[in-house]
Amino acid sequence: MALMQVNFFSTSLMRNVTYHIILPNDLPPDMLQGNEHNNREMKTLYLLHGYSGSTLDWMLGSLAQEVAGKYNLAIVMPSGENSFYLDAKGTGRAYGRYVGAEIVEYTRRVFGLSTKREDTLIGGLSMGGFGAIHTGLKYYETFGTIIGLSSALIVNSIKNKEEGFRNEIADYDYYVSVFGDLSNLENNENNPEYLIKQLLEEGKEIPSIYMACGTEDFLIEENREFHNFLTNHNVAVTYKESPGIHNWDFWNAYLEPSIKWALEDNK
Amino acid sequence: MALMQVNFFSTSLMRNVTYHIILPNDLPPDMLQGNEHNNREMKTLYLLHGYSGSTLDWMLGSLAQEVAGKYNLAIVMPSGENSFYLDAKGTGRAYGRYVGAEIVEYTRRVFGLSTKREDTLIGGLSMGGFGAIHTGLKYYETFGTIIGLSSALIVNSIKNKEEGFRNEIADYDYYVSVFGDLSNLENNENNPEYLIKQLLEEGKEIPSIYMACGTEDFLIEENREFHNFLTNHNVAVTYKESPGIHNWDFWNAYLEPSIKWALEDNK
Amino acid sequence: MALMQVNFFSTSLMRNVTYHIILPNDLPPDMLQGNEHNNREMKTLYLLHGYSGSTLDWMLGSLAQEVAGKYNLAIVMPSGENSFYLDAKGTGRAYGRYVGAEIVEYTRRVFGLSTKREDTLIGGLSMGGFGAIHTGLKYYETFGTIIGLSSALIVNSIKNKEEGFRNEIADYDYYVSVFGDLSNLENNENNPEYLIKQLLEEGKEIPSIYMACGTEDFLIEENREFHNFLTNHNVAVTYKESPGIHNWDFWNAYLEPSIKWALEDNK
Amino acid sequence: MALMQVNFFSTSLMRNVTYHIILPNDLPPDMLQGNEHNNREMKTLYLLHGYSGSTLDWMLGSLAQEVAGKYNLAIVMPSGENSFYLDAKGTGRAYGRYVGAEIVEYTRRVFGLSTKREDTLIGGLSMGGFGAIHTGLKYYETFGTIIGLSSALIVNSIKNKEEGFRNEIADYDYYVSVFGDLSNLENNENNPEYLIKQLLEEGKEIPSIYMACGTEDFLIEENREFHNFLTNHNVAVTYKESPGIHNWDFWNAYLEPSIKWALEDNK
Repeated sequence: MALMQVNFFSTSLMRNVTYHIILPNDLPPDMLQGNEHNNREMKTLYLLHGYSGSTLDWMLGSLAQEVAGKYNLAIVMPSGENSFYLDAKGTGRAYGRYVGAEIVEYTRRVFGLSTKREDTLIGGLSMGGFGAIHTGLKYYETFGTIIGLSSALIVNSIKNKEEGFRNEIADYDYYVSVFGDLSNLENNENNPEYLIKQLLEEGKEIPSIYMACGTEDFLIEENREFHNFLTNHNVAVTYKESPGIHNWDFWNAYLEPSIKWALEDNK
Repeated sequence: MALMQVNFFSTSLMRNVTYHIILPNDLPPDMLQGNEHNNREMKTLYLLHGYSGSTLDWMLGSLAQEVAGKYNLAIVMPSGENSFYLDAKGTGRAYGRYVGAEIVEYTRRVFGLSTKREDTLIGGLSMGGFGAIHTGLKYYETFGTIIGLSSALIVNSIKNKEEGFRNEIADYDYYVSVFGDLSNLENNENNPEYLIKQLLEEGKEIPSIYMACGTEDFLIEENREFHNFLTNHNVAVTYKESPGIHNWDFWNAYLEPSIKWALEDNK
Repeated sequence: MALMQVNFFSTSLMRNVTYHIILPNDLPPDMLQGNEHNNREMKTLYLLHGYSGSTLDWMLGSLAQEVAGKYNLAIVMPSGENSFYLDAKGTGRAYGRYVGAEIVEYTRRVFGLSTKREDTLIGGLSMGGFGAIHTGLKYYETFGTIIGLSSALIVNSIKNKEEGFRNEIADYDYYVSVFGDLSNLENNENNPEYLIKQLLEEGKEIPSIYMACGTEDFLIEENREFHNFLTNHNVAVTYKESPGIHNWDFWNAYLEPSIKWALEDNK
Repeated sequence: MALMQVNFFSTSLMRNVTYHIILPNDLPPDMLQGNEHNNREMKTLYLLHGYSGSTLDWMLGSLAQEVAGKYNLAIVMPSGENSFYLDAKGTGRAYGRYVGAEIVEYTRRVFGLSTKREDTLIGGLSMGGFGAIHTGLKYYETFGTIIGLSSALIVNSIKNKEEGFRNEIADYDYYVSVFGDLSNLENNENNPEYLIKQLLEEGKEIPSIYMACGTEDFLIEENREFHNFLTNHNVAVTYKESPGIHNWDFWNAYLEPSIKWALEDNK
C-alpha cells in the first residue's frame, strides 16, 4: 500500500496544489491471494472532504487505507478548499473541473488507473457529498458511481438569499463567490436537481447514486428532499438513514458499506 | 535544522491549511560556535511565494535552508494561493489577516519565536513581494522589515479596469474577486500607496523596506514607480536593480543579500 | 487540531529523520467548552508503530486524531524502523535513546508540552508495544504510563538462538543486529523482565502498565507470560484479553479505552 | 512539475519507507517548446544523499527541481539512511538492492519512466557518491551513467581496521554493521574497485562515470586514488577537480554540469 502526497500545477486552479493518493499497488502476495478485487485494473475512488477540511481529512478521520487494501481500490483525496467543488467565476477558480476532469485525467495518466466509467467512483461527506453528487452528475460520462454521505445539498436553502444573509457556516459574500448569483441558482448548472433534469431530458445515463444521512444530522431534510426529488423523477438511488449526527462516527459507519455496495452489490 | 510541514485550522481561511517552517533549532554545536546570529532569540522571516506558487516554492526553488542556518533565522512559508495576500470579501477569504496576524501569532506561540518587531521580517517574490509590502505595511506594528523581490505592484495597472478586461495572468472576475471593486482601488486599504499615506499622516513607524527588481523584468516599471513614490514621500527604502528577468536566478541572487542587509547592515 | 510532519537531525540516529505529531492546540472554542481535559498543560502520548511500519501507521490505521482531540492529548509518532526501539551497537543506532529521551526532550522544548511524568505516556502495538514497555521501563522517570497492545514480547522466544535460526519475521543476523548477542539476552537491559527486576531491587517507581492482546493473536502466550511475570512480582498491571487477532480491528478497539484508562480511570 | 512524497512497503527493507520524486510531467506548453529534452521518454536520475542526510536533502540543499525541468528529467530521491547504500547482513537491510533494483523497478512501473539503460542515471554526494558508484557498478545493466560528487570512497581507509577503531564519523561497530567484516573488505562486493575488476574480467559494459571533488575536500585523496585506479585499468572516467570543500556550494556547482555532460556531451 503506497501513500503519496502529490504537489502539481493545476491548470483549473492556475497554481500548484496538493492531493493525496492511496495506491494499493504493492500489497504483499499473501494479501492478494483469494482477493477477488485483485484480478482487475485499478478502480479509483475520488473522495472529497467537507467544508473547512483538507486533503488530509479522510486519512486522519477514517480508515480509508483499510478499505483501499480490501477492495484493491485507489483512493484520490483532492482538496476542494471551501469551494463546494464548483467552478466559480474568474481565472483559477474552476474547482469542479479540477475534481471532475483534470485530476481524473492526471491520476489516470500518471498512475495508470482504469479509465472505465464503471471503475471510477466519486464520493464525499458534507460539502464533499454535495461535490460528489454535483461533480458526478456534471461529469456523468466519467463517473459510474456517486456516494454522498450527509451531503450538503444546500442549494434550496441559499437560493434567492439577499445581501446581509448569513448562517452558521458563512456569509452572503461567501455564498455568492462560491455559487454565483443566488437569485439565479435554481436553473443553473450549480444545482444538482437542474443537472438531473438535463440528463433526463437528454436521455443520458445517470451514475449509480448512494446516499446516507443521520436522522439527527442538521442536513437530514436536505437529504430527504433530494432523495424524494430523485425518486419522483424515477432516478435510481440507494438511500440509507440511521441514527447519527454530522460526524466521523456516521461517515465511518457508511464508508465501507457504500464501497461494498458499489463494487459488489450494485455490479 | 528542522523542516516542518504543518496542517492546522486557520480561522482567517475557515479551513485546514498547510504551511512549512524551517527551524534552525538543532544545529550541531560546531556550527553554532562563532556564529553571532546564534546568541539571541529566534528571528523569523515570513516568506511568500508568487502567483501560481505554493508553500513548497521557496524550498524547491531557492537555498532558503542555507540562509536559515547561516543567520539562525526561522523561515515560515505560508500558502497565499492566488490571493495577493489580501482580505477578500466573504467568509474564509482573509488571506491578509492569515499571513499578517494569524500565522504570526500561531508560529510565535507554538514555536516560541521572538515577538519583537525588529526580529520579524516579511518577504516575498512577485505576488509575494506585493504581499510582503502590503501586509508589512498593514501590520506595521508586527513587522520591522519588508523585502520585496520583483514585486507585483499591479494596483495602478488594474485600477478602474472594466468587465471584459483580461491580461496574460488573469481575467477581470479574478481581479475583482481578489482586489474588490477595481474602480475603488486607489484610495483603498488594498493599495500599498494608500497605506503609506495613512501611516505618514498618523505618524506611524514604517517598516524598513528593501526592494529589488531585474531591469528586464516585466514588472520593472511598477517597481520603479513604487520606489519613486516612496522617495517622493521621504520614506526610506533600499532599492536595487540589476540585469535579470522574473525568475529564480534573480530571486536567488537577492535572497541572502536582502537578509544580510536586514540582519546586519540595517541594524 | 494541527498535524505536523517534522524532519530534524537526531543525535541518537546521527541523521535526519521524520516524525509526525498531532497537536490539539487550536480546537475551536465550542469544542473546548466543558471538556475537562482542556484545563491543563498538554499531556503527550508517544505512540509507536509495529514491525514493518512507519511514522504514518497510526494516522492511517487508527482514529488517533479523534482521540487526540477528545482528550486534548498531543500524540507523537516517531519511526523506530525495524529496531524494536532498542539501542543497537554502533554509531547512530540508539533507537531506544531516540524514543525514550531525545524525541521527548525535543518535542517538549519545541512545542511546550508538559514535562510532568504523569502527563507523559508511551504506547504502541506489536513491536511498538514491546518498545513502549521496554522504553517506558528504561526511562521510568520520564513516563508515567505504558500501554502495550499485542506487544511483541519476544525475548524469551529468541534468546539463545543460534546462527541459522530464522522465523517468519526475520533471520538470525537481524535479531543479533537488533538485540545484540542472543546468548546474553536474559540478563540484559534489552529484556523488559530484567528491567523490572532492576527497578524493584532499586525501589524505583514503575510506570502504570496497561496491556491488551487478542486471544487469537500469535503473540498471546508471550503477553500472558509477561502478565504473569508482572503479577508474580507484584507489579500492578491492567491486563485485557478479548477475541481478536493481530490487526487494526483489535488495536482500534483498545486505543481509546487504554487512553481513557490512563487519563481518567487510573488517575 | 510535480513533487511527490511516496511512502510504500519496500521488500528490501521490509518496512514502509519514504522517498521523493520530482516529475516534470506537467510543464506548461510554453516551457516545452524548443526544449530538445522533451521529445523523448522520461529519463531518470536516482539521486542519493550523504551520511546523516535524508530524502529531503537534495530538494532543500540544491536546485534539483530546476535541473529536472530544464532537462525533462525525473529525479528520484530515496533515503539510504546511514547505510552507504550497501546490503548489510540480516533481514530488511538490503539498501543496495533497494536503490539499485527495487526502487528502479517500482518507479518505472508506477510512473512509466523509460526502462532504457542509457536513460537511467545514478548520482549522489559523499556517502551518496559512494552509493552511486557502488550501486551503479553492481547494477551495471540498469544504469548507463554514474555521477559521484565528493564521493566517500572510504573502503581503503577502513579495511582491516580492528575493534576499538573510530574516526570522526563513526565507530568500529557501525562500520562492521554497514560494510561487514572489515578484514575481508578488499576482495568483496562492497568494494567498488573489486566490482570494476570483476566487470573487466567478465567483459561487461561499465557505465559512464563522472567524478568531481573539491581540492580542499577531506576526501580528495580517496577520489584521486579511485580516479587513478580507473585510469590504470583503462576505464573511461570524466574527472573534475576545482577549489572547494565538502559542502553544498561545491555540489551545486557540479549538479547541472554533470547532468548536462550525461545527457548532452557524453551522448
